[in-house]
Amino acid sequence: MNRIDALKQAAFQKDEFEYFLIFNNTNLTYFTSFPGATALLVPKQGESVLYVSSVNFEQAKAETSGLSVELVKQGENLIQKVANFAARTNSIKFAVDSLSIESWRAFSKVLGGEERLEPAGNIVRELRKVKDPQEIKLIREACKLTSEGMQVACETIRPGIKEKEVAAEIEYAMRKQGSDGTGFDTIIASGASSAFPHGSCSERTICEGDLVIVDLGATYKFYRSDMTRTFIAGKVSEKQNKSYEAVKDAHRKAFQTIKPVVPAKNVDAAARQAIELAGFSEFFVHNLGHGVGLEVHEAPILSPDSTEALAAGNVVTDEPGIYLPGYGGVRIEDTVLVTSDGAEKLTIGSYSLKPAS
Amino acid sequence: MNRIDALKQAAFQKDEFEYFLIFNNTNLTYFTSFPGATALLVPKQGESVLYVSSVNFEQAKAETSGLSVELVKQGENLIQKVANFAARTNSIKFAVDSLSIESWRAFSKVLGGEERLEPAGNIVRELRKVKDPQEIKLIREACKLTSEGMQVACETIRPGIKEKEVAAEIEYAMRKQGSDGTGFDTIIASGASSAFPHGSCSERTICEGDLVIVDLGATYKFYRSDMTRTFIAGKVSEKQNKSYEAVKDAHRKAFQTIKPVVPAKNVDAAARQAIELAGFSEFFVHNLGHGVGLEVHEAPILSPDSTEALAAGNVVTDEPGIYLPGYGGVRIEDTVLVTSDGAEKLTIGSYSLKPAS
Repeated sequence: MNRIDALKQAAFQKDEFEYFLIFNNTNLTYFTSFPGATALLVPKQGESVLYVSSVNFEQAKAETSGLSVELVKQGENLIQKVANFAARTNSIKFAVDSLSIESWRAFSKVLGGEERLEPAGNIVRELRKVKDPQEIKLIREACKLTSEGMQVACETIRPGIKEKEVAAEIEYAMRKQGSDGTGFDTIIASGASSAFPHGSCSERTICEGDLVIVDLGATYKFYRSDMTRTFIAGKVSEKQNKSYEAVKDAHRKAFQTIKPVVPAKNVDAAARQAIELAGFSEFFVHNLGHGVGLEVHEAPILSPDSTEALAAGNVVTDEPGIYLPGYGGVRIEDTVLVTSDGAEKLTIGSYSLKPAS
Repeated sequence: MNRIDALKQAAFQKDEFEYFLIFNNTNLTYFTSFPGATALLVPKQGESVLYVSSVNFEQAKAETSGLSVELVKQGENLIQKVANFAARTNSIKFAVDSLSIESWRAFSKVLGGEERLEPAGNIVRELRKVKDPQEIKLIREACKLTSEGMQVACETIRPGIKEKEVAAEIEYAMRKQGSDGTGFDTIIASGASSAFPHGSCSERTICEGDLVIVDLGATYKFYRSDMTRTFIAGKVSEKQNKSYEAVKDAHRKAFQTIKPVVPAKNVDAAARQAIELAGFSEFFVHNLGHGVGLEVHEAPILSPDSTEALAAGNVVTDEPGIYLPGYGGVRIEDTVLVTSDGAEKLTIGSYSLKPAS
């Protein structure tokens, strides 16, 4: 079943509304594989209408299929345009995936009342959570590129090189292999800044004995990947090794928990317990993981207060970490596919706290 | 004046509300120079409160100043947290920069009514439109990096090389010079796909005689740049040269129009008239330009229906284009600073339709 048909099945079965309006850019890409549209109107019956401004109109016609592509001319107001269409439907209700309060008000006005609009972004969120075979193929490719980039990180990190220089080499290698760009801003966080989970990538020169967190993703045909390894520039100290082994154990135990129907919070708990046992519980300051797809952070969320259960086709990260303020941090992360009876790692790389060459 | 004080001055002078809540990620970066917060509460009197989840809490404390940094614990609800604070203020009204309809409703509920909330994103938009000296310095650096990248494009493009390979070389060079990454997905659109203004960067091999549009940006300490040149892989045809000269003329005439108080639509009109005179009016299918700063597309917009006037400190693009469907396109773009009495190009590069080496 194509994605628009799946939306129709999910959204219109209860007869609550008869049109679904998609505005969110990523959702538009999900349903059309084209990132340059302004809105998509999906009716219960008949052909969907893709609204596109003049800048992307020719490209939309060339690169989409099974849709009616309608031009939004310069100076034309999309809200008015959709409303004109909606006027022909008088009292029928519209579902929308996402709107700001300002747009919500403007829309309600032209439709003649808030009661004709229903926020229903959750329906799309649930659809996007389970990846279809085509999506898995693209995420797999993005993960392969990232694994290759991580190998470059391992070969590049050494005392005396700058964080940004490491990023340059990794990103160049991924690009040469076919990446469409990074999946997010590459993190190369060395020394004390590795104790910040989102420590950035600066002009800092890596020093002998530094922990270096490399958190990396690629984009391939709009799909993303997410992978982290922690390296050491020089000889490993006992303290570094102890937190590293605790994270590695937590990462492995969480991975072993991943399979369909398991509550997402149980996977988080498996990692959290391992870190607690090792005596580092207060230093694991984030969720275990998140979904990955068109966005690097999407559903489902693997956190202590998650209410979701895993399902085959979910793609999630398994990324425990320990962050010792002022000292340094360790994180290990893979992107993992939930299969029919377990889990498969899509990012592949060594787990040893390898002294960088 | 610092940016939070400027917000206080702009927002609270009319006594309409006494608190401003910032949720938008880019706005949070604008006010705090820190990209990892969840929300910022700015009161009319006293210290602002930055709400940060545990994952970024230590980093926020280390990298921000002049703010009270408050932890949002795992499982805690930010809306409830801010509402608890707001309860102490009973009937006082809150301005918000941006909220989805779902968050708007949740917020209204805990505050006891929609009348205690006011969408006021436009106030921040207006502040961000006029760049301060620190912002101009960072945009200038991002533009310098982009100009260097464009030089690499000029040296790299030739028949036989793939679009993605060109992007790899450009981005690597910018990274080595200190770029924090691209400002947006690099466009290398060759041959017929150059007729799509947002033609992407693919595995396509550039052919002899192709027009090649290179649209490029860098990020430097969160600030962006935007620059386009069109190259030719081989010998220039008369048809290619004619559209190129028309775009060059439009770009020059628009630039000459840029200065404070001029309506933005007049700058667009200067370019549009030049393209019309050359006989290509139907093929200039987008606005002339847009603001550049923390986002690659921000205020002001230089379009036929803009109602804004330019002011010193605006940073805008001047980017006319001609797109001949099925044949190819030409675009020339610089990032331009509006000065006290005119304009200064921040991106620097040749305007000749240089046959690539």
